[in-house]
Amino acid sequence: MYIAMNRFKIAPGFGKAFEEMWRNRKSYLDEVPGFREFHLLRGPSDETHTLYASHSVWDNQKVFEAWTHSESFKKAHAQAKSPEGMHLSHPNFEGFEVIL
Amino acid sequence: MYIAMNRFKIAPGFGKAFEEMWRNRKSYLDEVPGFREFHLLRGPSDETHTLYASHSVWDNQKVFEAWTHSESFKKAHAQAKSPEGMHLSHPNFEGFEVIL
Repeated sequence: MYIAMNRFKIAPGFGKAFEEMWRNRKSYLDEVPGFREFHLLRGPSDETHTLYASHSVWDNQKVFEAWTHSESFKKAHAQAKSPEGMHLSHPNFEGFEVIL
Repeated sequence: MYIAMNRFKIAPGFGKAFEEMWRNRKSYLDEVPGFREFHLLRGPSDETHTLYASHSVWDNQKVFEAWTHSESFKKAHAQAKSPEGMHLSHPNFEGFEVIL
C-alpha cells in the first residue's frame, strides 16, 4: 500500500475557497486502476498559513506513478487554477510506503 | 474523521532498527474507543535522513485527544527507547481534520 500526499500552504483568508476548489473538482480517480481512496485534509494553522494536504491511497507506488502519466491525471489537473495569493509556496509532494 | 501523524527524521543506517522498534511495540490501540487504524509509513530519503511517519485514523479529534491522556497511551509510550543518534530531531506532530 502506498500513500501520496501533497502539502499546501494556504494564506489566511483563502481556506474556504481552497476547500471549495477541491469540492468542485472532478478527480477522475475512480476510473484509475489501483486507486483506493482520496481525502482532503486540513492540518495546523499559524499566523502565516494553514497547512492542507491531499491524501490518496493506492495499491502500490507503481500504480500511483502510472496514474501521474495518464490521461486521467491530465484531465484532473487541467481544471486546477488558484487565485493569486492563495498559495504561499509550491505544493510539496511526499510519497509514503506503508510498511506496517 | 481525523488523521494523526508524527514525523520522524531517522539518521542513515538506523532505518531497519527504527522499523523493528515499531514492529515489536505493543500499541494497545485496539482497546481505545474511536480508534480506527494504524500504519507506519516510510517516506522520502536524502543524504541526511529518511522521513518516517506514524499514521493513525480516528473517529474525530476529540477521541484522539482523550487517548493522549489515557493509560493506554502511557503504556504504549513507556516502551519507546531509541538508541542515541537514531533521531535527527524531535518528532513533529501534525493532526489533520478530514474535510473531503
